[in-house]
Amino acid sequence: MSGPSILVDEARARQNIAAFVSDPLFCNKQLRPHFKTHQSARVGAWFHEAGITQITVSSLSMAAYFCSQGWDDILIALPAFAGDAAAYDALAGQCKLSLLCDDVQVLEQLCSTITQACAFYLKADCGYGRAGIPVLDSERFIAAVALLQRFPQHHFAGLLSHFGNTYHAASVAEIIEINRKATTQLRKLKQTIEKEWGVDCGISIGDTPSLRYYTKEILEGISELRPGNFVYYDVMQLILGTCSAAQISVAMDAPLLSVYPARKEALVHAGAVHLSKESCRMPDGGTGYGMLVRIRQNSIAEVLEGCYVDRLSQEHGILRCTDAFFNEFKAGDRIGILPVHSCLMVAAMKDNSTEGANEK
Amino acid sequence: MSGPSILVDEARARQNIAAFVSDPLFCNKQLRPHFKTHQSARVGAWFHEAGITQITVSSLSMAAYFCSQGWDDILIALPAFAGDAAAYDALAGQCKLSLLCDDVQVLEQLCSTITQACAFYLKADCGYGRAGIPVLDSERFIAAVALLQRFPQHHFAGLLSHFGNTYHAASVAEIIEINRKATTQLRKLKQTIEKEWGVDCGISIGDTPSLRYYTKEILEGISELRPGNFVYYDVMQLILGTCSAAQISVAMDAPLLSVYPARKEALVHAGAVHLSKESCRMPDGGTGYGMLVRIRQNSIAEVLEGCYVDRLSQEHGILRCTDAFFNEFKAGDRIGILPVHSCLMVAAMKDNSTEGANEK
Repeated sequence: MSGPSILVDEARARQNIAAFVSDPLFCNKQLRPHFKTHQSARVGAWFHEAGITQITVSSLSMAAYFCSQGWDDILIALPAFAGDAAAYDALAGQCKLSLLCDDVQVLEQLCSTITQACAFYLKADCGYGRAGIPVLDSERFIAAVALLQRFPQHHFAGLLSHFGNTYHAASVAEIIEINRKATTQLRKLKQTIEKEWGVDCGISIGDTPSLRYYTKEILEGISELRPGNFVYYDVMQLILGTCSAAQISVAMDAPLLSVYPARKEALVHAGAVHLSKESCRMPDGGTGYGMLVRIRQNSIAEVLEGCYVDRLSQEHGILRCTDAFFNEFKAGDRIGILPVHSCLMVAAMKDNSTEGANEK
Repeated sequence: MSGPSILVDEARARQNIAAFVSDPLFCNKQLRPHFKTHQSARVGAWFHEAGITQITVSSLSMAAYFCSQGWDDILIALPAFAGDAAAYDALAGQCKLSLLCDDVQVLEQLCSTITQACAFYLKADCGYGRAGIPVLDSERFIAAVALLQRFPQHHFAGLLSHFGNTYHAASVAEIIEINRKATTQLRKLKQTIEKEWGVDCGISIGDTPSLRYYTKEILEGISELRPGNFVYYDVMQLILGTCSAAQISVAMDAPLLSVYPARKEALVHAGAVHLSKESCRMPDGGTGYGMLVRIRQNSIAEVLEGCYVDRLSQEHGILRCTDAFFNEFKAGDRIGILPVHSCLMVAAMKDNSTEGANEK
């Protein structure tokens, strides 16, 4: 059966990985890329060939999947669930497992239940407002570190923060300012914790929008970077200005079901269940769910200017098209779609792949 | 592993099915409910017990799945893809297969390639503007029916339309008006085709928002109904006023990872990859991704007034909570979420189920 399928442009993805691992700014940092973007053993192998040995994932099931693929140093960067303590314990017997926590009671439940050695990061909220102990609430961090000292089999890995507000930044200056302010707060908290407890306190950060704007000053005291989206990038990053179209390395390869030149639209089999309903501003100012692109064999070619996914229902995608589109394409062809958010498209399609992680 | 999982309230779903099959208005109609909503053999069996023998699906892979589960009269209600002709042919050897078409060239390719008997519906666009030949363009319908006459192994099943604009209707009056106008156009087209070709021309319609507003007048000449969402309903239908909260029969059962009473928020493991990013207006006027509900054993209980999913990222869901919420719930509990769009949530979770159809 044909249906929509995911095309990964290997050459582009490997270039994106190479740019990350070879950045001289990062030479003294632990690189722990987030694998939720691709959830793929094959893409993981490209990271491994580039020297990566530590990874981040966003669920227990994803951790179990990559552990089964031979990865042995895995951080689950979603606050841990006390009800999963037994499963964490089992996994920690198979790899070096790091967990994330932002609640002292949950931390105590986990520490007292998990028997295998486990590393714990404390999540700091530097203003994004999603998860984490507010970075200025040093007392709660001190209390959490104190608790960890009572469990010598476990290990305090340091502070972890995600500056997700960079995705909504209006300018490069705003991305830089978010990083400058947040890393200053984290460095101060690190000093407080190290002074109070005499422990080594790492700092882990990393989001793709910030990646190209890091400076030596921003990264001072930062021990670990864990962006993930950069391996594929996507239209959201393109519009944000953090990548070029030629760096986007994943596309939907979709059947073109029907064309409607009278209304300058066309129908593809690629709906909300394939692309996700993540939308963003398109180059012409409209809101869309993906940009059209030519595909050739296993690579992504030129963007089809002025053409994008305008509306989605469950399995239908409605394309807004130019007259040039109808000269080139007809019902029965296939067409490429660059996703608005590659992570969500890949997750939506992962049950279509023999290699992707299955949730649960 | 716990993680988020889908809870289907069997008693509610069976009541929704019973209300559909026993509606006296529908007693002379073919009932062909859309199975894309649940994609579940178990829920399918409840329909079968209620007397349903014909079904609608939205992809070839879903058709193959339900055929493997014993369903033998299946309509794929997405315009057919010429490149899939061989796969349609194989499936038509295993069940009574109906395909949908809105392009005469594609229809010709399919008719001349598929050797097994196949039924073809012609898709009419009555103003929704997604797929279909414009309903007023009777010449193109006549040409398509003429083409079908050249292939005696195949069968003209009639006209099919989806009034998807009812989902965006501002009032009940608007839903009724959409149905009144569109069915009048379809009846006229049916007469034109029957007069021109002497064939029997059925009319298939069916969307869940319209379901409770059908009248004898609207349904005159309509031969088939194929709504799907009504088996589960969801928050979008609740806000539209087409169901009550007590009729919603599916919920996410999500781990509550952390609570943030200071900002009246909480964190669940249920993100965009589980709930989908479909949003709608919540009862308080804000935009949200699901309403909170108590769950008890395998049933859905009371809605938690004033609490809903406010923001989503890949695996994180941020809840907007009332003070009462924090008196009742703490990190480590589980919480129910009524989905904005049940079809998309179920599709997003289907790889988490042993019973769901796998795309491709």
